[in-house]
Order: sequence, then C-alpha cells, then structure tokens
Amino acid sequence: MRILLIGYGTMNKIVARLAVEKGHEIVGVISSGTTDYPAYTNIDDAGAEVAIDFSNPERILPLIEKPFTTPLVVATTGKKEEIVAALKKRAASAPIFFNANMSYGVHVLNNLLREALKQLDGFDLELVERHHKHKVDAPSGTLVKLLDTALDVRQGSYPVYDRSEANEERSDDEIGVSAIRGGTIVGEHDAIFAGHDEVIELKHIAQSKDIFANGAIGAAESLIHKENGFYDYNNIF
Amino acid sequence: MRILLIGYGTMNKIVARLAVEKGHEIVGVISSGTTDYPAYTNIDDAGAEVAIDFSNPERILPLIEKPFTTPLVVATTGKKEEIVAALKKRAASAPIFFNANMSYGVHVLNNLLREALKQLDGFDLELVERHHKHKVDAPSGTLVKLLDTALDVRQGSYPVYDRSEANEERSDDEIGVSAIRGGTIVGEHDAIFAGHDEVIELKHIAQSKDIFANGAIGAAESLIHKENGFYDYNNIF
Amino acid sequence: MRILLIGYGTMNKIVARLAVEKGHEIVGVISSGTTDYPAYTNIDDAGAEVAIDFSNPERILPLIEKPFTTPLVVATTGKKEEIVAALKKRAASAPIFFNANMSYGVHVLNNLLREALKQLDGFDLELVERHHKHKVDAPSGTLVKLLDTALDVRQGSYPVYDRSEANEERSDDEIGVSAIRGGTIVGEHDAIFAGHDEVIELKHIAQSKDIFANGAIGAAESLIHKENGFYDYNNIF
Amino acid sequence: MRILLIGYGTMNKIVARLAVEKGHEIVGVISSGTTDYPAYTNIDDAGAEVAIDFSNPERILPLIEKPFTTPLVVATTGKKEEIVAALKKRAASAPIFFNANMSYGVHVLNNLLREALKQLDGFDLELVERHHKHKVDAPSGTLVKLLDTALDVRQGSYPVYDRSEANEERSDDEIGVSAIRGGTIVGEHDAIFAGHDEVIELKHIAQSKDIFANGAIGAAESLIHKENGFYDYNNIF
Repeated sequence: MRILLIGYGTMNKIVARLAVEKGHEIVGVISSGTTDYPAYTNIDDAGAEVAIDFSNPERILPLIEKPFTTPLVVATTGKKEEIVAALKKRAASAPIFFNANMSYGVHVLNNLLREALKQLDGFDLELVERHHKHKVDAPSGTLVKLLDTALDVRQGSYPVYDRSEANEERSDDEIGVSAIRGGTIVGEHDAIFAGHDEVIELKHIAQSKDIFANGAIGAAESLIHKENGFYDYNNIF
Repeated sequence: MRILLIGYGTMNKIVARLAVEKGHEIVGVISSGTTDYPAYTNIDDAGAEVAIDFSNPERILPLIEKPFTTPLVVATTGKKEEIVAALKKRAASAPIFFNANMSYGVHVLNNLLREALKQLDGFDLELVERHHKHKVDAPSGTLVKLLDTALDVRQGSYPVYDRSEANEERSDDEIGVSAIRGGTIVGEHDAIFAGHDEVIELKHIAQSKDIFANGAIGAAESLIHKENGFYDYNNIF
Repeated sequence: MRILLIGYGTMNKIVARLAVEKGHEIVGVISSGTTDYPAYTNIDDAGAEVAIDFSNPERILPLIEKPFTTPLVVATTGKKEEIVAALKKRAASAPIFFNANMSYGVHVLNNLLREALKQLDGFDLELVERHHKHKVDAPSGTLVKLLDTALDVRQGSYPVYDRSEANEERSDDEIGVSAIRGGTIVGEHDAIFAGHDEVIELKHIAQSKDIFANGAIGAAESLIHKENGFYDYNNIF
Repeated sequence: MRILLIGYGTMNKIVARLAVEKGHEIVGVISSGTTDYPAYTNIDDAGAEVAIDFSNPERILPLIEKPFTTPLVVATTGKKEEIVAALKKRAASAPIFFNANMSYGVHVLNNLLREALKQLDGFDLELVERHHKHKVDAPSGTLVKLLDTALDVRQGSYPVYDRSEANEERSDDEIGVSAIRGGTIVGEHDAIFAGHDEVIELKHIAQSKDIFANGAIGAAESLIHKENGFYDYNNIF
C-alpha cells in the first residue's frame, strides 16, 4: 500500500517502520515538523491508497472537516465524540476506520469477555491490570472499557477498587478492580471468573506499542478493499 | 429436586454432598454396594424427578436398554459411542443429558477457544496442561478435546509434543502441546495465542472434582424443565 | 508416630486423615465433644509420642500452663504473644514447635521473598493475593506477613491499597497491595518484582487446608527427634 | 563512565542508547564497520574507564590475548572455556567481569531456584520456557542453566522432554522440561514446584534485549571500583 501518515510522533514512526517491513511504502506525511518523507497539507494530495492517523484532535479535526476520498484510519485519542461525528459525515465519500483502542488483541479480549460473561453467569468477575510505574491513571483506559462491557452485561453490578477497609464478604454484584504498577511493564489485562472450585481467566499481554501500529496497518489493509462507510473492528474483517 | 443416583463411587458421593447442600434430596441409589439410601434396580422405580449417573458402561448400558421416562443425566466415561447411541433412542420418551466432559467451565473454555481461533487468525496457538504426578496419560483428555477444536478450525495444523530434538523454527501450522506433571495438581488447561508483540491466554483451573458433580447437578436442574430429547451443554441452558 | 490431637475441629480431622494415610496412629483426643478416639484431659496422659494442637486459645492456654514432657506442635491462631510466652516456659522440659503460619510452602515463599528483596534492590515490589468470596479480611494474614518482610528489608517503604483516586506516578517507596476475591479460591499469594524490561514473580498457590495439616505433621515428625527447646520452621529441619 | 564498546551489533547499540540515558559517555568503538564514534584497535587506546564487549569470539579473543589494564565486561557468547581461560590470565592486571547470562534478573532467578530446591525437598520440579517462533533451539540456553542448577542440587534427577508417549506415572526423579514457541515472545522462564495441595512458582519474564545491556552497564558501574581480578554476578556487587 502507498501510505500517507498523519502525525509523525512515536506511534507513526513505528507505523512507518512496521509498514515498510511488511512491504508497504510511505509516500508522505502531514505534520508540522520535518521528516524523511514529502510533506502534504490535505489528505487527498499525496495520491496515497490509505492515510493512517496517529496525531491529536487539533491536527485531525481540521483535516476531516474538509471532504476527501482517500481511505482513512484514525487512531487519535481524545475528543472522541467530536472526531467520530466528523468522521461519520465523511463516510459517505470514503471508507473510514475508527476504533477506541487500536490494539486488535485488546478488541478480541473484550469480545471474549462479553462471550464469557454470557456463559459464566454465577461466576464472580475480577479485573486486574499491570502497567509501568510512570502511568498516572489507574485503572487503565483499557480496563475501564472491559469494565464497561461487564457492567453492560451484568446489570446492577458495580466496581470495587479497595477492600482493605471493608471487612465484609464480597457481594455477588461486586466487580473487583486492581491496578498493579511497576518497572516498565507495557500492559497486561486479566479477567478472572471465579466459580465453585474452578476459575477461568482471560488475559492480554502487550509487549510494545507495536500492537497499536500493527492494528492500524491491519485495518488499513482491509479498509482499502471496502465500500465507502464507517468501520471499526466489529465489521472491518 | 428428588434425585436418584446411578453408581455410588467417589463422584456420586460428591454429588450427594453438594446436592444436599443446595437443598435437593437423594431418594435412592442404583448400585451393587450398600449405601445410606434406599436401593433400586430400574431408573423409574424411585419416583425421582431426575437420575444422575456417574457409574461405568457395565452398569449404565443395561439400564438404558430398557425404556424409562425419568429425566437422566449421564456422566459415565468410556464406550462413548455405544452409550450415546442407546441414549438417543431413549430421548423420544425422556429428557436426556450427556456431555463428554461434565465440567461446565471446561465446556465454556472450549467455546471461548473456538471463538478466539476465529478471531485470532495469524496468532500462534500453544496448549499447556498441568496435572498431578499420578496421572498416566499425557496430554489429558480435556487437552485432546481442545486440540480437536483447534485442528477443526485451523485445517492443516498439527500438534507438536517435543521440540528438544528439532532445532528448527516453529512452523505456522504447529500447535505445541505441553504436559506438566507434579504433586496433587487437580487440573489446569491453558491456550496461549502469541502474535506480534501481544499474547492472549485463555485458562481453566480446577480445584477439585466438585466441578464435575456441580456440572451434573446444574444440568439436572435445567433438564427437569425440558421436553423429551437429547441435550448437551450447547443446548441445555 | 503415636499422636494425641488437641482440638477436633475441621483442621484436626484433616490431621487425623492425613496422619493415618502416612502410617501414623491417633491415640487420643483432648476435646469437649465426642470423637472416634479415647478422650484425655492432659497432654502427657495419652502416652503419645507427639501432640498436635489445632484448637483455640481457650483450650490450649490452660493445657500449657501445666508442665508436660510430650513433644508438642501448636497451630492455634489468636493470642499469639500469650501462647508463645507460655510455650517458651515449657520449652525447658519438652520440644515445642510453633509457627505463625503452619503452611510450610508459605514459610518458604516468605524466605524466598526476603532473599529476592536483597538481590532485587531497585525493582518495584507489588503484592497480590486471591481468596474465596466469603473471606472478610483483606489483605489476608499471609499477605500482611509478606508485607512485613518487605517493609523490614526496605526501610521507608509503605503499602498502597488503592490507586484509583491518586492520578500520580508510583513512587519508588510504594508497595502496591491488591486483594482479589471470588468463588471458592483457597488462597494464592504473588510477589511481583518489576524492573527495567524484566519481571520476577514468586507465587504460592494453595489447593486445600491440607497444607496446614501436612505442615503440622511434618513438623511433628522432626520434633520427636529434637532436644527440649522452642522451634519454628527456621530451625526445625 | 567513559565507555569503550567492543563490537557494534544489535546489543552494543542498545548499550550505547541506555548508557547515554543513564548519563554515561561512549568514547569509542572497536569494530570492523563504521559507527558514530571514534574507532580504536586496542582496549587501552581509548582512555576509557571501562570497556563493554558484545561481539564474537573472533573479535574478543585476539584483543584479550594482549595485556591491558582497562576494566572489561565481556558478554560474548560461544567459545566460553577459551574466553574465560584468556580472561583469567588478564585478571592479574585489570578488573574483569564475565557471566554466562548477562541478564541480572535471570541470575537472581537461578539463585532463588537453588534456594528453593534446598527448602522444597519432596516437591516435584517442572521447568517451562516461552520464546518467539523464530528461536531454533529448545529448550533455551537459560533453561539449560536452570536445569543444571536443579540436577546439581537433586542428584539422580533427570530431565523429561516429552510425556505424550510414556503412559506412566511421573517418577520422583523426573524434571519435566517444556518449551513453548510463538509470536514474538522475548523470553519467559518458569520453575514450578508442586507438592501436596500447594504449588510454588518462580518466574522470570523478559520484555526486551535491554535486560542484557542493562546487566552489562550495571556490572561495569561496579567493576570500575574493584581491584584487579575476575568477577561474575556472585561477587560483583
């Protein structure tokens, strides 16, 4: 694929490296800084087969206000509602991909969690994540997403973040949430279903940020064969 | 429920204990030995609402050769084809439940594995199990079942049991199988999907044989509300 | 060994079962209820080679106020200081064994944790435990013991039980503590050392209360060959 | 520290990056290719405070045949006996560090394993490792080292690599060895001690090759304060 990068920070540098390894070509960049690639101002200018965005709301929002026809993968985080609304307008004239978490494996974990919640009624659910010591938010955004899935399926459930003060039995409606921090751990998420004398665990382990770049490239590879429209991981493959 | 036990070995003694804990009643036993319960010869004689079998082919086969109408849960292992064939004949006049592995959690693990196989195309799959040091077969029957699921979805794949001699790269079609043995470990099964910089794991951990008894009781609780027919974990709930 | 049981609750019934399996003999019981064994009132009356106590402070304290010479293993929890003080007086005339946690595996985990703390200076430590849903205290007594070991080696460290409110980076002096609750999990304890791009984990998994009974029997087997004195897991073997 | 690099392949490029991040300086390189640093031919020529080698036997052996006084960390793998013999001669005139596995965490895991083997007599030991799908040898060199430790402490033990053919109980002298392969897994090593109703696990997880570079830098930081002599992880800190 001939790829236009929107943004050229840590993530799109990884996209460039992995895309070239897979035989794709970077034909240009939309970015304020200098890069090794031709610079462009609008999405359709580069003659790219697909554009991959890892930038920020300030960069991507003006770009998608104007019409374009190049297939576009958007991985910017922040201002989600605003970006999705703008993208849905453009989906009439271009294939667009957007998913809140660009890791395909995390998407699958969330699907499996939803399936397990349906089949493991009566099992207690606990969610645990691990990240590096510099992460300031806890629990992680991905854990919050998993929790949302659980709260959606198990109406009446609620999260519990600390049991050190309570001194009482776990209620059936609790969903325990634990956040482990240390070293340079990239990210692990664990859903633990505990029943009578058996436990089922679903776990995702990330080794590097490559998983987000790979997710975007994989989505782009499918997107270029799609009709105009709005896609996410649930309908792209 | 008023329960008739067929067989009175280790497993049906656990069924008796757990069923009573849940408020059910054991109304009789079909067994060659002496028990604490009234002895019966035929399935319909005890006036039970459901019969739960954990015996052996020699005991259950003659019983199901004759017609009966009491709902029946069969958990005997061995002579599977013969038993299933006989049960299917009786399913016209009684609700019958049979599942190769009576642990509901293992059944769910297998379902999740099938789902994951569909969604994680391109991830390498490895299967690992742990059991106590007295177990003579390796890999376990449950792992063989999980492997069958994988081979069914991934046509052309094949299991590899030992890599210590090979000295070559893993092929994409391999499914590595490892069996760990030690102490009194009841049973763990782990499906590891390894992709580019991310791993997804699905794990089932058994603490005791209670899980098989609980599976049978749970199936029985649903079965007594069912039409005549042949049921397994895919259609009982 | 000819064993006298002090107390005949859940734990000493397990001691009786496991001791007989190992070829030992139960020669009597000191208990208020009726049992299958001869009843005694004082420790030396039964002619036992060793006495094993799993009772409560109300039973054991009066017994050890009086002098005796039978080797004694004490596993009662509660009133620890009082019991230890009384036992140390008796250690002049009998070999006595007392350890705060009767599981030998947990004792070894604590030893390994101390060793790891010395060698993994600069790694972040996090402690996680899992128990069944009926457990009211969190974290578990065993985790508190592991934490004490960590705080002892890492002067200036402090535990953190909840990160969901903080929104700041982990400090180097934190020791994160997480308590997972669900189903019938017997007990797991996990010490996670996270450094730069590597993690070392030390984990103990309990399958049943047998581990406490086995610990007491194993200690008793050594104790009967010892001089009078006060022993724990650090000097019994 | 002013560091001279010997070799400039993948590993010493990582050493350069991490050393600069820690405030050290790369003053030169001994290498056949072109680099961003001044090129040198002999260890003492660069005026470095320490030399760090990640090269190959062909490069390092001629360099250490000649006398030098600069502290030297050697991380080349292959021709171990020959290199160690040559290094020991030079240890009279310079502080020298050599350790078969440059990861400090793996070294600690091996120490903890040795300690656990002493304390967990009677527990069954199983060793499991995971690596990426391109690794051709199985089990890994690190697992072989852990196995050597186990065989050294447990005289009469022997490794078992495949149980799928045997159909018999595990013997007490077996040490099961399993090698899992898939995706891009950097490296995990797990020592599982299974006893009666309890399991103790010691695990090391590597996220990247940084751990080898960090090990070498950490060793170098200590080495420059040492007397002439031959050091490894057992006596460097």
